[in-house]
Amino acid sequence: MDEVRIAGFRFAGEIVGVKRGSKRDRPDVGVILADQPAVAAGVFTQNKLRAAPVDLSVRRLRRGLCQGLVVNAGNANACTGAQGEADAKEMAALLALGLEPAIDPKLVCVASTGVIGEPLPMELLREGIPRVGRAVSADGFSRFARAILTTDKGPKVAVREVQLDGRTVRLAGCAKGAGMIAPKMATATTLAFVTTDATVEAAWLSDAVRAAADRTFNAVTVDGDTSTNDSLFVLASGAAGGKPLKKDGKRGRVFAEALREVCGELATMLVRDGEGATKVVEVIVEGARTVREAERAARRIAESPLVKTAIHGADPNWGRILCAVGNAGIELRADKLELDIGDVPVVRGGVGVREAETEVAAHAVMKQATYQLRVRLHVGRACASMMTCDFTKEYITINADYRS
Amino acid sequence: MDEVRIAGFRFAGEIVGVKRGSKRDRPDVGVILADQPAVAAGVFTQNKLRAAPVDLSVRRLRRGLCQGLVVNAGNANACTGAQGEADAKEMAALLALGLEPAIDPKLVCVASTGVIGEPLPMELLREGIPRVGRAVSADGFSRFARAILTTDKGPKVAVREVQLDGRTVRLAGCAKGAGMIAPKMATATTLAFVTTDATVEAAWLSDAVRAAADRTFNAVTVDGDTSTNDSLFVLASGAAGGKPLKKDGKRGRVFAEALREVCGELATMLVRDGEGATKVVEVIVEGARTVREAERAARRIAESPLVKTAIHGADPNWGRILCAVGNAGIELRADKLELDIGDVPVVRGGVGVREAETEVAAHAVMKQATYQLRVRLHVGRACASMMTCDFTKEYITINADYRS
Repeated sequence: MDEVRIAGFRFAGEIVGVKRGSKRDRPDVGVILADQPAVAAGVFTQNKLRAAPVDLSVRRLRRGLCQGLVVNAGNANACTGAQGEADAKEMAALLALGLEPAIDPKLVCVASTGVIGEPLPMELLREGIPRVGRAVSADGFSRFARAILTTDKGPKVAVREVQLDGRTVRLAGCAKGAGMIAPKMATATTLAFVTTDATVEAAWLSDAVRAAADRTFNAVTVDGDTSTNDSLFVLASGAAGGKPLKKDGKRGRVFAEALREVCGELATMLVRDGEGATKVVEVIVEGARTVREAERAARRIAESPLVKTAIHGADPNWGRILCAVGNAGIELRADKLELDIGDVPVVRGGVGVREAETEVAAHAVMKQATYQLRVRLHVGRACASMMTCDFTKEYITINADYRS
Repeated sequence: MDEVRIAGFRFAGEIVGVKRGSKRDRPDVGVILADQPAVAAGVFTQNKLRAAPVDLSVRRLRRGLCQGLVVNAGNANACTGAQGEADAKEMAALLALGLEPAIDPKLVCVASTGVIGEPLPMELLREGIPRVGRAVSADGFSRFARAILTTDKGPKVAVREVQLDGRTVRLAGCAKGAGMIAPKMATATTLAFVTTDATVEAAWLSDAVRAAADRTFNAVTVDGDTSTNDSLFVLASGAAGGKPLKKDGKRGRVFAEALREVCGELATMLVRDGEGATKVVEVIVEGARTVREAERAARRIAESPLVKTAIHGADPNWGRILCAVGNAGIELRADKLELDIGDVPVVRGGVGVREAETEVAAHAVMKQATYQLRVRLHVGRACASMMTCDFTKEYITINADYRS
């Protein structure tokens, strides 16, 4: 694959030594540097115990500008108290002041992923961050994409190109997720970074990023827990030129759709790479009274251990799926419920379709690596979907084995 | 063990043939019969897809009276539409009119557990239910307790005796839970039946039963899904005599506490018998703003797959526990959080206790079969607790294996 390039940005990823054990010789600090302060927006974890780097980045993105991003893998700098706050701030300063020429430390954001509750190895980072900062290049995207990984099977990259007023605008994103093998890793932290050369106004970008996240990263689940560190950053250099995007309109829709596609592709890769996962299933709920109720039902199905084990066993056990819907606390009418597994009608009018071939056909669908579960509530017109994966013995092994 | 007897009640449990496969020679229809209409109350599933027998029993308990209960295991009569409603009603009539002398069918309640979405084998039940009804005896409690089981490892029985105004009052309960090995079984349906010879007014009994359930059956979780059929029935014959219990007061408290103890003992047995479970853990949340917030946090911890796998691995992975608290959507202050694993202080002021022996000591606690996880939020005075079990490969095996 040719190296991904986005005009106005340089990237780096190097070994600093934050990762330990079997990962100790992997790149673990990444940097994104914009030639000029970039228009920037982010979406961050809703977990009340937000890690120090997330707090710092939320504050710094309020102005809608970001010139540098420093990311470390191997230590989440979460549940680390006042020391953690000071360390996150120092990470940003180490990048800003280690560059030649230096940039404003307040224009640097930070992301961390890895072990929870341990102080960052600042002695290593004091040596490493300035070095990684000086290593940035227009060809560094792949090295950055590798440096942010923890227990992921491989890098996750998605790119799009769109035409706006005859100009080519590019978007390139990368993400990490998947992993909790590492000791004390609390949950599969999702980090995602999208760079684009589009010219965008900050307020509109912020709305577009939130909308994209809601339909992508916020619509996938591996085990239902969100991490202290989940972060999505979008940086726009404006190097493509043209009038700034500032509202929904035809041009805005084209860009927003491309952004959603990049995020969607990355989010799907996260589920596919979920711990021990062997199947990726899209749960679709239609005919709900409100979008919120459709989302609640889709999430309840997607996170039910009983549904996720049935998916693993390719068992068309529709009672479990209906049970999950019944537990979602939403408006429904039992006698209107419908369920399709792939294109096989399994439930109609709230009762099972009692035809000889139904079970065999549904089982065949569920043996596929990817398929859809579609529930129709018939009480309204709202819909929502959620991507999920199966629960496997491998998941238990990964997460239950005592750290050695 | 001597046979459990409760004055005013007779019990039976016989083989009718509803259970299939490896369980086909086990008792599968149980009956409780009161000599006179008993004062009765119940608590039923909050799942919106309530099974037909639950709907029927809820309606019939509105008058606060019940003389007969007929229970079948092997088929839940859930998601069975209008046919299911007619079948539940017929089950009650089969008991009432098959007795000599007959009783009022409207005084009979029904409970079912087993396969979802299949019609009841009514031809078997038409022969069987009258036969089981005629088999009742004062010595039939154990046979009833066995007839309600599905994949439980064994019967679950709890008894208490209290003195009220110099009279001995007895309570005897039995329950089933645990199992989803059976094909199409949606979730581990909980059925529980408590009989007592106490003299009680219906309205107060209803309140007492709800309070007991909230602190017991509603405070245990195996996998977070509630079934279409969950039911708790309490029947009081009044055979012990004395003035009726009708309000909280000293006598009321003595009875309510005994009822809570019976329900608590049965609920703990359900967790201990949870599918594949090897450990039972009590999650206690203290210092919340409201009881509801304490409950939400306790439930979030108790149902987190990451916490449940850490419990299985005896891994003192406190980041996962704090993460679950952060995901509960409750008021908290990161810098005030405390966590004890057993009696080992693990988190203080939101950060890990960094003492050499902490991890070893916490790991030792977690190797025990039963222990407590205690979170203190320090933002209020409310508390709640929840019993849970670990997530094991055996759970995956039980629930993922395709039905053969």
